[in-house]
Amino acid sequence: MRQSHLYTKTLKEAPSDEVSKNAILLTRAGYIHKEMAGVYTIMPLGLRVLTKIENIIRHHMDTVGNELLMPALSPTERWEATGRLDSIDVLMKTAPANKASEERSSASYILNPTHEDVITPIVKNITRSYKDLPVAMYQIQSKFRNEARAKSGLLREREFRMKDLYSFHVSQDDLMRFYEEMKSVYANVFRDIGIGKETFITVASGGDFTPNFSHEFQTLTDAGEDVVYLDRKNGIAYNKEVVTEENAKKLGVDFGTLEQVKACEVGNIFPLDTRFSSALDYTYIDDKGEKQLVYMGSYGIGPTRLMGVVTEVFADDKGLVWPASIAPFSLHLIVLAKEKDADSYKQAEELYKKLTEKGVEVLFDDRMVGAGEKFADSDLIGIPMRVVVSDKSLLAGGVEIKERTSEKSEVVTIDELLKTYTGNCE
Amino acid sequence: MRQSHLYTKTLKEAPSDEVSKNAILLTRAGYIHKEMAGVYTIMPLGLRVLTKIENIIRHHMDTVGNELLMPALSPTERWEATGRLDSIDVLMKTAPANKASEERSSASYILNPTHEDVITPIVKNITRSYKDLPVAMYQIQSKFRNEARAKSGLLREREFRMKDLYSFHVSQDDLMRFYEEMKSVYANVFRDIGIGKETFITVASGGDFTPNFSHEFQTLTDAGEDVVYLDRKNGIAYNKEVVTEENAKKLGVDFGTLEQVKACEVGNIFPLDTRFSSALDYTYIDDKGEKQLVYMGSYGIGPTRLMGVVTEVFADDKGLVWPASIAPFSLHLIVLAKEKDADSYKQAEELYKKLTEKGVEVLFDDRMVGAGEKFADSDLIGIPMRVVVSDKSLLAGGVEIKERTSEKSEVVTIDELLKTYTGNCE
Repeated sequence: MRQSHLYTKTLKEAPSDEVSKNAILLTRAGYIHKEMAGVYTIMPLGLRVLTKIENIIRHHMDTVGNELLMPALSPTERWEATGRLDSIDVLMKTAPANKASEERSSASYILNPTHEDVITPIVKNITRSYKDLPVAMYQIQSKFRNEARAKSGLLREREFRMKDLYSFHVSQDDLMRFYEEMKSVYANVFRDIGIGKETFITVASGGDFTPNFSHEFQTLTDAGEDVVYLDRKNGIAYNKEVVTEENAKKLGVDFGTLEQVKACEVGNIFPLDTRFSSALDYTYIDDKGEKQLVYMGSYGIGPTRLMGVVTEVFADDKGLVWPASIAPFSLHLIVLAKEKDADSYKQAEELYKKLTEKGVEVLFDDRMVGAGEKFADSDLIGIPMRVVVSDKSLLAGGVEIKERTSEKSEVVTIDELLKTYTGNCE
Repeated sequence: MRQSHLYTKTLKEAPSDEVSKNAILLTRAGYIHKEMAGVYTIMPLGLRVLTKIENIIRHHMDTVGNELLMPALSPTERWEATGRLDSIDVLMKTAPANKASEERSSASYILNPTHEDVITPIVKNITRSYKDLPVAMYQIQSKFRNEARAKSGLLREREFRMKDLYSFHVSQDDLMRFYEEMKSVYANVFRDIGIGKETFITVASGGDFTPNFSHEFQTLTDAGEDVVYLDRKNGIAYNKEVVTEENAKKLGVDFGTLEQVKACEVGNIFPLDTRFSSALDYTYIDDKGEKQLVYMGSYGIGPTRLMGVVTEVFADDKGLVWPASIAPFSLHLIVLAKEKDADSYKQAEELYKKLTEKGVEVLFDDRMVGAGEKFADSDLIGIPMRVVVSDKSLLAGGVEIKERTSEKSEVVTIDELLKTYTGNCE
């Protein structure tokens, strides 16, 4: 894509109404636009990153379940039935916004912050026998939470993207078999997004749902709102609420020896047992013809939050740094030329054409602005590899390439570059 | 995909709470699940259709604009500024759903039914000079409308998918140039979705926004809520509200000679002129250094509604009929065998493997149920081509193929089938 056609404007200064590093940098670089506290528009550049994150998640979820799309609205009665209408403190509902709307319909709906109460009747409707189980379904859509403070940019939004998967089983054993499988599926997701090394599976409380523990995936970052106790050697962490004398015995862990680190939760997996099947009367018929309650699990990952976390983890003082797998473009091609007739401009145009024809994702800075502005914007936008075409680079034999995370640049021939990125020189 | 892994259950009877053909058939075939009036879950089978519809729309929109993702929530003040807070009679807002939520934050937001009020400040923020214009941006996401009656299934939802594009121009001339371009872009979308012949561009009122006309795209169907006056010869229709003596003179049309037909609006394009730029104070600096109001247009298509309209147009008394471009699968492979050891079952398995390895989208009915049930389900689900593997078909030399819309079947060799769908026999 030509940078002149990318509707964005980088900002030299931090926006006055943001305090988090991720919101400041993503706004400055043109990835997001703030609508109000905790609510952002994902701009074209940001949507390229978000879509890649969601497709990596989708790829791995497809190995264990089917994708569907549930609505954001649900009937209030559903939440009454599960006893969550009053207990979820981030719950929002709808109302008509004016008199004319009130006259059409005065109905009020819940704006879903999660979907256990919605998916359970759906699966109940199609799966009533042990022969039909297990079932796993997931979706990627927008969720809503009435957050009190929303100052952490994409780390805590009032409206945010969510991947939520729900699984349904004949027994706790089968639930726990699937639950263990999901641990590796989640590890694969975070590895592919590029934060595998910074992300640790973390033991958390099972809440009121189960006497078992649940698990979170926590990414180490000073921007995180959580403190976890990290056993770095064994690659496992413990959520603050788990750190009790009783659990120390139960788990055989001396919490006193562990590192206390700040982290941000990027995913969680939860054995729900029969919490929702009993509330919503979801039973199946077992192989003896008896009614049994279905065992459930739920598994969440927040794509927009991940975009914020990746920013917090990798960005430096010059700007964003994207892992290759979720970068908006693979190459940032920059031409330095005084006029569009210049040889360097023509060579850059031709290189852009050849690369894009081969499917390489290139952002081509074709603007007629100075080198300083182009380089600063390039560092801010954070594409993994910068390629400069200028009189100087051509004189030296080709184009100057530099990784975003490196200080060193080198000159390679145009053929070499094409070969590296497209597999051949034509 | 194996039908035994597709979490769905076809229904012989129409659901008792639906009256529209599209909701009845899509529910019976397992494409959608009703949450409440006007709110549906899109089930895995339905999501395959919806994703294809959205990707066709995306493909064509990418030729004229950049994709972004705006939130469903927006600040109330925005709608006050445009004077639409009281005038939009489908407008909904949010409120805390319980006491604990109220204590966190008592704030209320608008649940966007459309995004002119949201996109205008975004584009104003990045585009202030004539040199930066025109700009076109679009999104595909969920919108909310407080509909009074919602009995038409996917044709009128309280929550629905929408593609909305907005364009920004230095002059009315440039707006109208782009507007004309969008007419052909829209025609291409409806052609590719498979309803090109049934869909007519329709002259509609410009409302309070512009003295010009706006345009709708109306698909002929008895399920439609609109009546249009169709000039079939010239391939153009007129919305009921346009049919006045004054417009007859203005347009040089004798409305009395036209067909009155029922239709459903599947898209609209609207010259907004300076309606929103003046309300939200969006000016640009022209080439003489003067401030000028920006001219805007908006352009909508409803993907979920399209799914309903395609159902209404093509379904027959046996079930759904999908155009190839948006069918959930290309082939419905059905095996008829008494046991999984049977030769026919093995051959079907092998054919399924070969086809899917080559990227052909196959739904493989691998269930151990009778031929009658399999054929009835296949007609109901509506995949364009049915392929039956049975002892009988193998004895006749291969597999029996039948188009969904044809009564005739024929036997072709497995090699012929593979060649047709994969380009070679291996």
